[in-house]
Amino acid sequence: MKSITTSFSPQLYALHANPDAIVVVVDVLRATSAICTAMHHGVERMIPVASLEEAFNYKKKGYLVAAERDAVKQDGVDFGNSPFHFMSPELEGKTIAISTTNGTQAIQAAKDAKHIVIGSFLNLNSLATWLEAQEKEVVILCAGWKNRFNLEDSLFAGALANALIKNGAFETSCDSTIAMGHLFQLASHDLYAFLENSSHRKRLKNLNLEKDIRYCLQYSIMDTIPVVENGSIVRLKVHQKLSLNNA
Amino acid sequence: MKSITTSFSPQLYALHANPDAIVVVVDVLRATSAICTAMHHGVERMIPVASLEEAFNYKKKGYLVAAERDAVKQDGVDFGNSPFHFMSPELEGKTIAISTTNGTQAIQAAKDAKHIVIGSFLNLNSLATWLEAQEKEVVILCAGWKNRFNLEDSLFAGALANALIKNGAFETSCDSTIAMGHLFQLASHDLYAFLENSSHRKRLKNLNLEKDIRYCLQYSIMDTIPVVENGSIVRLKVHQKLSLNNA
Repeated sequence: MKSITTSFSPQLYALHANPDAIVVVVDVLRATSAICTAMHHGVERMIPVASLEEAFNYKKKGYLVAAERDAVKQDGVDFGNSPFHFMSPELEGKTIAISTTNGTQAIQAAKDAKHIVIGSFLNLNSLATWLEAQEKEVVILCAGWKNRFNLEDSLFAGALANALIKNGAFETSCDSTIAMGHLFQLASHDLYAFLENSSHRKRLKNLNLEKDIRYCLQYSIMDTIPVVENGSIVRLKVHQKLSLNNA
Repeated sequence: MKSITTSFSPQLYALHANPDAIVVVVDVLRATSAICTAMHHGVERMIPVASLEEAFNYKKKGYLVAAERDAVKQDGVDFGNSPFHFMSPELEGKTIAISTTNGTQAIQAAKDAKHIVIGSFLNLNSLATWLEAQEKEVVILCAGWKNRFNLEDSLFAGALANALIKNGAFETSCDSTIAMGHLFQLASHDLYAFLENSSHRKRLKNLNLEKDIRYCLQYSIMDTIPVVENGSIVRLKVHQKLSLNNA
């Protein structure tokens, strides 16, 4: 049986790190939902950068750049981290550098992991199916909010864990994963309502981002799985085994 | 309205620290349940020490010493951290130095807080009633397991938060607290069954500590509230306002 563990925060990641596991990075509102969406709409490559300085350096070099802090698009760049910024047919085949408050920091935190994939509710089923086919343990790394636990990323951890455990190939003895498995069962029929009082939902609501939230809380509307390869995010070919990607 | 936040781990405590709040430290299995029990049975003072070395130094100085690591009582000391070690009438009026895997580390992590009290399911109602009477915000600090989230401490956070919020004087916008409030509702009718698969329950079960677990999961069987004063744990007089204790 393969194990699943969940890190509720990049700050706790070292306690869960497993050099041979697949790390699933999730930042539901909105970085990893936006990355999944961009990849699904044909973006060829995304370069996650932790600092705004690095993002602006990419801009100077002529790259398309997405940069967000505290849910607000930064001046002088092309996109924020709304998934709706990444649906244009003109982005097909393009490379975009991206820096966000929490999501790209989480990818950075996991940088020593051999295998990093990008999760969101949008690609939940495909991701679960693909993880089942790999002979690897799974660590779910929640981006959280500035290293704090957050509800939507942790609920995703519960959703993914439940899907993997249900099919019999995975088990968990990780309390974070067990807790979120229960909580997701409570929340799953209406994530939007369940998150009504969550801290980040309120933060985005104040910025009129209800449309983004509703979009990001949809289950399994795409089969795209973004994967980190040599520091860049690219699309995983679904029938490809991870070992081929990291040869 | 007064706020409640929850830190799932001593490692995350700095993100939640609030210099003017009351910090409730909890380590359900078993350190804070044992401390509540000892104080309830008349122990006068407990000195929490983080390292075993400090504990052994107290032993050399002639103190009674409780020391546990990985759920096992250490050689050469008087007690482990089973609550049943602290029920003897002979302990009335005594001082005991105590060092445990997680609980005393959590007290140590909060040492800069002005107000630290000790929580467990055993004194839940009294603690809630007393917190309501203080004009202070509340930070619940879960000891966890070696800095990892654990289920029983976090469920206690949910139980305490629900009790405080229900009575109208407290609110929360902390996702950790919201999540555990929901989870406690799910678990509250049978904590013992709910914790069946939890990591620490399994750890203790392997050591035949079922009796301890059943004891620690009882709701509100005592009104004793241990409080940290000048580095020592003493009994709070319930009608005493916290400001008097820390004058």
